[in-house]
Amino acid sequence: MSAARTEVREVWANGHPVYLGPGSLAALQQRLDGIDGDVLHLVLGDSNTLRHCLPELLRHVPALREAELIEVPPGEASKDIRVCSDIWRHLLERGADRQALLVCLGGGVVTDLGGFVAGTYKRGIRFVNVPTSLMGMVDAAIGGKTGVDLAGVKNMVGLFHDPLAVHVHVPFLRTLGKRELLNGLAEMIKHGLVADADHWEAILQAPLHDLDALTPLIERSAEIKCAVVKEDPLDLGHRKVLNFGHTIGHAIEAHSWEGAGRGLLHGEAVAAGMICAAWLSWRRDGLPREELDRITDHLLGLYKPYPFAAADAHRLIELMRHDKKNAEGSFRFTLLHRIGEAVVDQRITPAQVKEALEHYHDLVRHRAQGEEVP
Amino acid sequence: MSAARTEVREVWANGHPVYLGPGSLAALQQRLDGIDGDVLHLVLGDSNTLRHCLPELLRHVPALREAELIEVPPGEASKDIRVCSDIWRHLLERGADRQALLVCLGGGVVTDLGGFVAGTYKRGIRFVNVPTSLMGMVDAAIGGKTGVDLAGVKNMVGLFHDPLAVHVHVPFLRTLGKRELLNGLAEMIKHGLVADADHWEAILQAPLHDLDALTPLIERSAEIKCAVVKEDPLDLGHRKVLNFGHTIGHAIEAHSWEGAGRGLLHGEAVAAGMICAAWLSWRRDGLPREELDRITDHLLGLYKPYPFAAADAHRLIELMRHDKKNAEGSFRFTLLHRIGEAVVDQRITPAQVKEALEHYHDLVRHRAQGEEVP
Repeated sequence: MSAARTEVREVWANGHPVYLGPGSLAALQQRLDGIDGDVLHLVLGDSNTLRHCLPELLRHVPALREAELIEVPPGEASKDIRVCSDIWRHLLERGADRQALLVCLGGGVVTDLGGFVAGTYKRGIRFVNVPTSLMGMVDAAIGGKTGVDLAGVKNMVGLFHDPLAVHVHVPFLRTLGKRELLNGLAEMIKHGLVADADHWEAILQAPLHDLDALTPLIERSAEIKCAVVKEDPLDLGHRKVLNFGHTIGHAIEAHSWEGAGRGLLHGEAVAAGMICAAWLSWRRDGLPREELDRITDHLLGLYKPYPFAAADAHRLIELMRHDKKNAEGSFRFTLLHRIGEAVVDQRITPAQVKEALEHYHDLVRHRAQGEEVP
Repeated sequence: MSAARTEVREVWANGHPVYLGPGSLAALQQRLDGIDGDVLHLVLGDSNTLRHCLPELLRHVPALREAELIEVPPGEASKDIRVCSDIWRHLLERGADRQALLVCLGGGVVTDLGGFVAGTYKRGIRFVNVPTSLMGMVDAAIGGKTGVDLAGVKNMVGLFHDPLAVHVHVPFLRTLGKRELLNGLAEMIKHGLVADADHWEAILQAPLHDLDALTPLIERSAEIKCAVVKEDPLDLGHRKVLNFGHTIGHAIEAHSWEGAGRGLLHGEAVAAGMICAAWLSWRRDGLPREELDRITDHLLGLYKPYPFAAADAHRLIELMRHDKKNAEGSFRFTLLHRIGEAVVDQRITPAQVKEALEHYHDLVRHRAQGEEVP
């Protein structure tokens, strides 16, 4: 069985390979073995990943056993420029020079943050992403986008800086709860919706509790992400298909953290954003009504609805204006022509956004009351 | 005479052109005219450049008359990540999107800081450098290196991010005092020493008070900088010739700001660093004694010596260890084989550095006592 255990596939994104399969961490060990010279290794993680995932990483990658550890608090709040300053200082104190190599072990927060720190420390050192969350494996760790938040706006400060490689090791997901899995699943659903109708159908049946059954779907999603960013590394055109659900989703996410209630995870907000964007796709771009209903039902079935007040629409639109992708005036949406086929740069007015938000608001309210939505 | 007034030469560095000649700001106006779409223009400067240089910039570049102004305090202290955060927030508040264009009007501090902010805001917006100091015109504004300081270490955080262009307008120097001119002259002297013996000879005669006579020398230095970085944009090899005098110079600069006395300007510290590096070149790499003496005499004649105590050598060496270019153990120096010809990656031990510092210390002490140095 040792052949199966070391099986690995290399798929290329824009500027870096992604290693998939049971041998993906063995590929990291091989890479580290292959680097000449006296290289300081550092592992960046949060308190969860350093406790739950590091031992497994070290089992597969003994080259990291002497690595310096850098720990940040878990959660989005660590994507902050002050946390970056702490890590830069830490690197300096540990004597990290330009040959140093940073391994980012964690979810999207750790890889976004770690990639930005690596891209800017001494004008750029090498880094490797080892995603430990589903969101990281299928999306955040891939594609060279790095960044931190500023003034409540996500990824406001960052850069394109490719990792040396991304190593996807699905067994890390054993340590995750259902909410975390659903978080990443939202991006997988998006991949199906914008690029691959078969993938969408397969995901409809996805058994979240069965990692073995989920593995090929995870790897397919990582492949879709690779293929899209490869075509458009700097996010100037085709890559925008990945924004489906994100224009409104980002605003909902930010909004959920402003109030007193519990903030939404990124995928939860994107699920709500996809419901709005699918509705706009039906209104504007001919998405068949039947496909709209399937998308809406599936997402409402999986994700707890976000119960904003009708009066919050104004604030949500204001938050959307801060999004990197939005030019002045109207918004540019990625919409669906049909399931598996997206169109980018669709101009949507603030009034249309408001309609979509009201639609979502009604859906949620009716659902709470057990009614059919007209 | 209008032909002469608009005369401009375009010289390429690695990824960007540098405009030289009396028409260099007209070339900026032309560039801005040529950009389609609704582009927000912003001008970043310090309180000095916004007062003394902005009116002249606007006279030549009317396209910037409606630009948003961003002001930072003058001086190295502005190369700080907290100042970056303020500027990022400012850009956000002004509604700067990814099409926005930042014009950096100032010396090395403003262009280093502005380039870093532009390179990281929303993962990178366009910027233009309009250097107003001699240091900026011949060195700092050219080549795409950007960065801020951290924990007292210069340019510890930054990235390679090319400006759209650099526009060198020598008349801005009219607003500078002699100390500022000497600051930039140190880099011009370096250009001659490492790459062009004729340039060195010409600079020996340079009349600092006569801008007309200085102009061709400034443009020649800018050309040398362009040629070197073009050959090695990422600072992996040949560009290291520009480090001559900087390995010790950076440490002397940092050290001068630690004490109670007045801190040195970059060029002043590099002048001291070049004296040490020239001495090491004589000891290690066959720089003729007569050339060493000419370099030493000229630099000691122009620059006030830095009177560190013999006991400070230890701290200076410690500061050198934080330099981006220094691997563990020994240091890598750029030395002179002869005037006009540099060699990079010369290993120098801490003990040899100490000797060089002691040599400089003796030179300064003997000079203060009016003695000949043996």
